[in-house]
Amino acid sequence: MPDRLAVLRERIAELGLDAIVITHPSNRYYLTGYTGDDIPPNESGGHVIITPDRAVLVTSSVNSEQARQQASGFEVFDRVYGLAEADAAVLQEIGVRRVGFEDKAILYQDYRTLTERLGDEVELVPVGTLVDDLRLIKTQEEIAKIARAIEVTDRAFEQVAPTIKAGDRERDIALRLEVAMRELGASGPSFPTIVASGPNAALPHHDPGDRQIQPGEPIVIDMGARVDGYCADLTRTVWVGEPDPRLREIYPIVLRALETAEAGLKAGLTGREADALARGVIEQAGYGEAFGHSLGHGVGVRVHEGPALSKRNEEPLPAGSVVTIEPGIYIPGWGGVRIEDVGVLEEDGVRILTRAAKRSID
Amino acid sequence: MPDRLAVLRERIAELGLDAIVITHPSNRYYLTGYTGDDIPPNESGGHVIITPDRAVLVTSSVNSEQARQQASGFEVFDRVYGLAEADAAVLQEIGVRRVGFEDKAILYQDYRTLTERLGDEVELVPVGTLVDDLRLIKTQEEIAKIARAIEVTDRAFEQVAPTIKAGDRERDIALRLEVAMRELGASGPSFPTIVASGPNAALPHHDPGDRQIQPGEPIVIDMGARVDGYCADLTRTVWVGEPDPRLREIYPIVLRALETAEAGLKAGLTGREADALARGVIEQAGYGEAFGHSLGHGVGVRVHEGPALSKRNEEPLPAGSVVTIEPGIYIPGWGGVRIEDVGVLEEDGVRILTRAAKRSID
Repeated sequence: MPDRLAVLRERIAELGLDAIVITHPSNRYYLTGYTGDDIPPNESGGHVIITPDRAVLVTSSVNSEQARQQASGFEVFDRVYGLAEADAAVLQEIGVRRVGFEDKAILYQDYRTLTERLGDEVELVPVGTLVDDLRLIKTQEEIAKIARAIEVTDRAFEQVAPTIKAGDRERDIALRLEVAMRELGASGPSFPTIVASGPNAALPHHDPGDRQIQPGEPIVIDMGARVDGYCADLTRTVWVGEPDPRLREIYPIVLRALETAEAGLKAGLTGREADALARGVIEQAGYGEAFGHSLGHGVGVRVHEGPALSKRNEEPLPAGSVVTIEPGIYIPGWGGVRIEDVGVLEEDGVRILTRAAKRSID
Repeated sequence: MPDRLAVLRERIAELGLDAIVITHPSNRYYLTGYTGDDIPPNESGGHVIITPDRAVLVTSSVNSEQARQQASGFEVFDRVYGLAEADAAVLQEIGVRRVGFEDKAILYQDYRTLTERLGDEVELVPVGTLVDDLRLIKTQEEIAKIARAIEVTDRAFEQVAPTIKAGDRERDIALRLEVAMRELGASGPSFPTIVASGPNAALPHHDPGDRQIQPGEPIVIDMGARVDGYCADLTRTVWVGEPDPRLREIYPIVLRALETAEAGLKAGLTGREADALARGVIEQAGYGEAFGHSLGHGVGVRVHEGPALSKRNEEPLPAGSVVTIEPGIYIPGWGGVRIEDVGVLEEDGVRILTRAAKRSID
């Protein structure tokens, strides 16, 4: 990944750093291509150290052979002790004075180890989301990979959705969706598939369980394939038989909020302005309190990344970001409706990548 | 989960703490039963605050309805900003002086937020693996859940293993195993399924890919179901047709190392002594350098937990722990062999829970 390293090295030089230690797993994958697993909070597949002329992947002996195969251009340091101890050993061997670290993505324990091992003569400089920010704007190659993940997701949804019938269990539908994504080429889901029926649809992140689908109730399906390291994210709300009266009222509001947001969204709006496009429609319909999350988020090597389409983001959204647009209304005890597309932010609008059909209610 | 809270509150009292903040997702699940998702490093499904008379689950509005349903007996604090900011607000409202925190499982950023918000009058006390350690010794109910996860895993392996044939792709075998586990009752895999064939079998944590199975080569399958929140872990090495000469030599060594370890393992041995049981057999056969990981680890709500059957663990292994026993030999360029069972440590031995058949080579 020579271009990405070159850009990062420019940033390192601008900040007057001798090196940077990268502890964020998605940033590690973005820079190295190494797919080592991480289990939060304290099992990491590896750290990365970048200097003006070295690129080191620090990992454990269990993963080092895989790291050597995947991270071309990187030296693999095969630790026999803790990762942060190994980071410190590599940094001492290189001989550094000012070292950047990801203060939003490092364990307290690893930070402590680095300060203790490196001593007073080394200055640790917090760099915030410096490396995450490299991922905000996608290349054409990255957009093509996301589009492929979305295509796999859309096709899996369209294969499985017509087979859903009353009496099906949520967990069985989720399994059918995941199998379809894998058979169509996904390496796996980009997050645990959500199938939330009836009252469960009031929970934005419901785990699919044994509940059986009933006619007329909302079924929120939120799913995504991972293809070639990149993520998709798709939500559709469907039903079996005739929609119940509340669904008949709420579904068109959410659909109109989505369509309004997609018509108005473009690069240069702030996150708050983007969020307001959909929120305005939902508030006007009297459901403002029931839309308890933000409108969307970036998608890339990680299913949730920047930029945030949120009332708490006052920054302008950059052209070339890929983002979700996903308004929802949730009513505890009854259920909910969410509809989600993904698109590329451009100067004059948003180019929607999602093709999965949406239902309509007359 | 009243018993677990009672035990934790005794520890808090012993340490003279007013409260403890729990940031480790597995500890959160163990105490609350809440299954909120976490994406490392910086998306957490929630934190827990325990005091002598309060039990609070701090989460986001996206997850709060689910948290209320799952975490019975807990107050759910529905934050509208960062989790650590919310932790601080709850702690200030309670009015605390000495607060324990999980120094091995907290983000640097969250630690900083706590210190800044709570100020000098509140002392933050590192408690290490205090809460993890509650999970070391399993109750009969927990052992029954793990045994059920193992049974699902064993049956899925025994259904799929006979169907493996030359030309099958690794990823397709992995999918068949995962579908079988789900159909048999798993909520999902307890970790990404490994199917590593030929040279890929030299990578202990290989991601299954497009490689097609060839006759005679080793195929390492490492898989586990999650059932009712508890994990299984199973490794078998299989082959199609006649095993190649190297597999014929190495497989019996690993099998003997496993059998020797299972015959000698019992509570009271140190992690180092346990590891040495298998390592001695492999070293004597001349493959010591090729066994690059430790013999095993605890299994519970997390697939990797304490105690460690490792040469770096000088502590005695407790009775009532559930552990893996998984020797392996890895030869870069050729492949590898690993065989893994799971058992309960008892005073006079280890009670093996795994039932999946092992191959033998005459």
